[in-house]
Amino acid sequence: MVQHAPRDLRREEFPIPEIGREDALLRVEACGICGSDYEQYEGALAVPMPVIPGHEPVGIIEEIGEDASRRWGVQRGDRVAVETLLPCGYCRECIQGRYRLCRGTRAMSAFGYKPVSTPPALWGGYAEYMYLDPHALVHRMSRAIPPEIAVLFNPLGAGFRWAVDLPRLRVGETVVVLGPGQRGIACVIAGRQAGAGTIIVSGLSRDEHKLALARAFGADHTIDVEREDLVRRVREITDGEMADVVVDVTAYAVEAVTQAIDLARRNGRVVLGGTKGPQPVPGLLSDKIVGKELAVLGAFGVDWPAYEAAVRLIESGTQPLERLHTHTLPLAEAERGLALLAGKVAGEQAVHIALVP
Amino acid sequence: MVQHAPRDLRREEFPIPEIGREDALLRVEACGICGSDYEQYEGALAVPMPVIPGHEPVGIIEEIGEDASRRWGVQRGDRVAVETLLPCGYCRECIQGRYRLCRGTRAMSAFGYKPVSTPPALWGGYAEYMYLDPHALVHRMSRAIPPEIAVLFNPLGAGFRWAVDLPRLRVGETVVVLGPGQRGIACVIAGRQAGAGTIIVSGLSRDEHKLALARAFGADHTIDVEREDLVRRVREITDGEMADVVVDVTAYAVEAVTQAIDLARRNGRVVLGGTKGPQPVPGLLSDKIVGKELAVLGAFGVDWPAYEAAVRLIESGTQPLERLHTHTLPLAEAERGLALLAGKVAGEQAVHIALVP
Amino acid sequence: MVQHAPRDLRREEFPIPEIGREDALLRVEACGICGSDYEQYEGALAVPMPVIPGHEPVGIIEEIGEDASRRWGVQRGDRVAVETLLPCGYCRECIQGRYRLCRGTRAMSAFGYKPVSTPPALWGGYAEYMYLDPHALVHRMSRAIPPEIAVLFNPLGAGFRWAVDLPRLRVGETVVVLGPGQRGIACVIAGRQAGAGTIIVSGLSRDEHKLALARAFGADHTIDVEREDLVRRVREITDGEMADVVVDVTAYAVEAVTQAIDLARRNGRVVLGGTKGPQPVPGLLSDKIVGKELAVLGAFGVDWPAYEAAVRLIESGTQPLERLHTHTLPLAEAERGLALLAGKVAGEQAVHIALVP
Amino acid sequence: MVQHAPRDLRREEFPIPEIGREDALLRVEACGICGSDYEQYEGALAVPMPVIPGHEPVGIIEEIGEDASRRWGVQRGDRVAVETLLPCGYCRECIQGRYRLCRGTRAMSAFGYKPVSTPPALWGGYAEYMYLDPHALVHRMSRAIPPEIAVLFNPLGAGFRWAVDLPRLRVGETVVVLGPGQRGIACVIAGRQAGAGTIIVSGLSRDEHKLALARAFGADHTIDVEREDLVRRVREITDGEMADVVVDVTAYAVEAVTQAIDLARRNGRVVLGGTKGPQPVPGLLSDKIVGKELAVLGAFGVDWPAYEAAVRLIESGTQPLERLHTHTLPLAEAERGLALLAGKVAGEQAVHIALVP
Repeated sequence: MVQHAPRDLRREEFPIPEIGREDALLRVEACGICGSDYEQYEGALAVPMPVIPGHEPVGIIEEIGEDASRRWGVQRGDRVAVETLLPCGYCRECIQGRYRLCRGTRAMSAFGYKPVSTPPALWGGYAEYMYLDPHALVHRMSRAIPPEIAVLFNPLGAGFRWAVDLPRLRVGETVVVLGPGQRGIACVIAGRQAGAGTIIVSGLSRDEHKLALARAFGADHTIDVEREDLVRRVREITDGEMADVVVDVTAYAVEAVTQAIDLARRNGRVVLGGTKGPQPVPGLLSDKIVGKELAVLGAFGVDWPAYEAAVRLIESGTQPLERLHTHTLPLAEAERGLALLAGKVAGEQAVHIALVP
Repeated sequence: MVQHAPRDLRREEFPIPEIGREDALLRVEACGICGSDYEQYEGALAVPMPVIPGHEPVGIIEEIGEDASRRWGVQRGDRVAVETLLPCGYCRECIQGRYRLCRGTRAMSAFGYKPVSTPPALWGGYAEYMYLDPHALVHRMSRAIPPEIAVLFNPLGAGFRWAVDLPRLRVGETVVVLGPGQRGIACVIAGRQAGAGTIIVSGLSRDEHKLALARAFGADHTIDVEREDLVRRVREITDGEMADVVVDVTAYAVEAVTQAIDLARRNGRVVLGGTKGPQPVPGLLSDKIVGKELAVLGAFGVDWPAYEAAVRLIESGTQPLERLHTHTLPLAEAERGLALLAGKVAGEQAVHIALVP
Repeated sequence: MVQHAPRDLRREEFPIPEIGREDALLRVEACGICGSDYEQYEGALAVPMPVIPGHEPVGIIEEIGEDASRRWGVQRGDRVAVETLLPCGYCRECIQGRYRLCRGTRAMSAFGYKPVSTPPALWGGYAEYMYLDPHALVHRMSRAIPPEIAVLFNPLGAGFRWAVDLPRLRVGETVVVLGPGQRGIACVIAGRQAGAGTIIVSGLSRDEHKLALARAFGADHTIDVEREDLVRRVREITDGEMADVVVDVTAYAVEAVTQAIDLARRNGRVVLGGTKGPQPVPGLLSDKIVGKELAVLGAFGVDWPAYEAAVRLIESGTQPLERLHTHTLPLAEAERGLALLAGKVAGEQAVHIALVP
Repeated sequence: MVQHAPRDLRREEFPIPEIGREDALLRVEACGICGSDYEQYEGALAVPMPVIPGHEPVGIIEEIGEDASRRWGVQRGDRVAVETLLPCGYCRECIQGRYRLCRGTRAMSAFGYKPVSTPPALWGGYAEYMYLDPHALVHRMSRAIPPEIAVLFNPLGAGFRWAVDLPRLRVGETVVVLGPGQRGIACVIAGRQAGAGTIIVSGLSRDEHKLALARAFGADHTIDVEREDLVRRVREITDGEMADVVVDVTAYAVEAVTQAIDLARRNGRVVLGGTKGPQPVPGLLSDKIVGKELAVLGAFGVDWPAYEAAVRLIESGTQPLERLHTHTLPLAEAERGLALLAGKVAGEQAVHIALVP
């Protein structure tokens, strides 16, 4: 599926590329749909086109070069989850493990964002095959997992990085998650896995099915912010202690930032994972950050250890992840999938959607 | 000196208390004046009165109990710098080393804030003697240092905690300090001591003498924000890299928070040390924190290791600290000292002021 | 029960002390027996006598002063688990959260080690009542837990500190625990709670029932080191990767230190928790620590956050902790309990023993 | 200079390679001689031959491809210091910033160790030109520094990693360095730069000139271990506190490991940087590591941030580094340089030697 312009997605064919010593070919089994995919589809993101979208793919190594095999530790026939970014691996950021800040590559060096004009064209997951260039970051994953569950490595990775790694969550701590989407629920799963104490999730009234899911995955309390006062409710639940860690994964809700700061206990950590666009945060009193000595931590994307934790969790089979996955669609229905995730299809409640070639 | 009401400071006498096994008596040599002392004097802070102000004292142990001597590691005749807080030492916060969050004591359990109605009255540094109750935190310091320099342990401690410890400053990193007051200059001294690379300090045009002081203590660049564009200038100086660490020590300047976020590089740390009162921060785009994955860290007060680093630095005699100290006044002139520090005395430029009994 | 000399334990009565503002009286519900209790009983530890042994008590607050209540956050009637140490809370170590290194108290300032000659005598857990002096560290715990299970907070605390906190265990990491005693199994429980990946426990052939317990609490593999080559087996299980974290809790087995170093992967962490006495470690090649850049971390005792995590885990009721607890004995049978834990009672296999008044 | 066999070093010529988009050509200005160079020369290290030795080069970019220029942030004409390793940049270790543990390259993928049989042959610093393959790690450095001083980036990098980064040295802490060679003195320089308090260096009687150098670079005390009892002397100097950080950089002195453990204070850190070969450490009581809760940290090689700190220090011109550098020799005298560093030239005392083409 190639996007030529906003809302213009077409089926096309490209030749299978030749593979050398350092690269590989992936037979795509499934590709997750991300919230940002819809923005790309609508043209809200500046992506060079035509382009094959899709940056959450899982597939089988169809062919692989000798050097790539040694570097990645995978063989022909192995299943791998593929990270979004294609970092250079050589620049000062990459070499220090901060490859998400890579300076060595040009803009949009990521699966789903590189245009088909860059050979060999197959840079996106909405496809039957994808080209794994030497810079691809792959995680081996058991073939026993259904492909549409396997692609959950992506939101789950965000859960581990945002709710566990970045705030250095300790066993027994209280976590509040603002926003019950796939990333919010992933924070619940990751926090539970890492031994969090009380987990609280907030959402809107129309998110009730997502809040129920959050409870199914181990949230101790959920709060409908349209019916209850969020801060007061958290104070009650925590016996006045408030939260050790607050993770905001809401999109475009700027007041959530101010609330997150109110919800944190003294010395607590606030992780900001949701993007808000160009709207300023209203009513932010910096003295609250100072007086409570908070750490407010920006979270953008996921990194290797968090993806790895996600893959291991999926393989463990200990979580009813099929409940998080709501829709499996063929590639041809990519547009319907995008509309579903964006909540544009009346009567359907999507949490996680996978495209399967 | 006892404060009975806003702007009402009187000379009074109290009996010298008896000292048991766990406490001590301090003969005050000097007491620093803090910015908050002026707020207390004016009545802007809710402090129970009558009270002896002064929470930055240095003095000689005049008498000490056997247990206190062993616990504190000091003897009669030793000089000590005394921390402001009187934490309980037993509650869950104290026991984990977060004594600044002590839950075990009642409000205002700190030198300079406990009223004279609590025996034995001598709870403040604007006095000839001060009572060291078992909860006092004292740092032994060489008697070779002049008392008015010795009291610099307080702002210097803030420098070490805010510019070095909290942001985990690494050798060679670039630091921007917003605000050139005694705490801003202390950040320069501490950052230089810890091996910072480039240090930049910003201030207003009327702060030129303080900016000059900052340069004397090792700032590589100072920026007059009324004459230059702060963000552009830092971009030039850092060759586009921006700052690893930004420390905001400005008081009541809410836009400094937004600027601090703009000045930080990707993955940088922003330390908020200045309090702003009830005015919200204008134009804060949380996506900048998210997209750059910043850590925004509230800093309130100083702790043991930072005070200790400050005391060792003073003892080392390697810094021209006398340049930072501008006024030594007798106790009787406390009110003039308060006015001086607040910038209310025309024609005088105060940076650091000590009261000497 | 008062110990007067090695192997001389007698039943005695003491008056109930009066309680002031800062202290409390504990009605002991149960007290765990620690391996070191047997050493104390036999006279292998230099403890001032006569003394009431027992440093792992749980009980009900029978009486409490107003200040103690505020500091500790507990009321009359609450159940608390009591830490062993009585740190001063004021010295430079205490104030930085390292109260296990307290310099302010004299030797043996710990429950179970302070002699009855120090008023009010009731310093040990092998008793009906225990005196909680102002320095006691208490953790509130639900009364719903049976007392003999509640006292497991002590070995479980070691599990959290040694296997999770000290090595900064990350989700998904491989842990090897050397030694399947109560502390070894506690490491399994804590590691599993914190999201460890593969957990492997080793022991001797005669420990088979303990190794079975380890498996019941979530160990993926157990290794009988008398029948299998430990290093080779771990290499097989981990596919050549070896362990991220190795925790040695064996007592007096010096070769375990060398093995632990062999079992760690490059950049791995080795936690030494078991004491070995004055025997040197044989055949230690320091180049293995250098070449693999290991961190070898000494672990002595437990601290507040680890005890707190243990208490929360017990309260959660999610673990079959009753399987870890093997014997409940009345105070009068303290000597038999000590013999049982030391493995001196033929035909009985003890893991955890509680004395109940 | 090409080494064909142990003690067989010959002058040879190779063609200058062609440079593409991702690589570069270095005109070597100087190359430091490392202790391990002598082992390589003597045949004690298993290095494939023939090979051009030299892994501490500094030079000018003579030619560079467009991609390499962007990734490395350097241009034609820039001076760079080149790290020893050539990591793959793609494997799971590299991508997490642990490139020293790279799994993606074959053995000996490092400058000075890759044989001339691997095109384009120019893999060593004992040469006029060196080939910078895409995996090279380069640090830009000012051309104003004399080349023989510039190559000090290598031992200085070790100083920053071993004495500062690995033990997380804090301002004011006491550091003991065992061994006064170039790496020992580098630890003094780095520790001083990072704000260490007291620095103590030990050595043998024949190292007196090196101990004097250590004092010149800021060591407060030096100890001749043949004339004084090391542990007793450190106890005196530190007033019984012992050292926060101990760094062992001695080669082949196994008893130094035991001493390092004795010299550390409770909760101290011991960094093992010196390699000892296959001799076991004698008399190591692991209970000392346990009882004092030490962290014993292996240190092997240097990483990016430490090299960067070293380069910035050299550029700052604040240290009399010329005193650390003792010999500059032409390439043709490489063998004499190796003999000098190994202490095999009677009457000469070498600390740091640079070869200059």
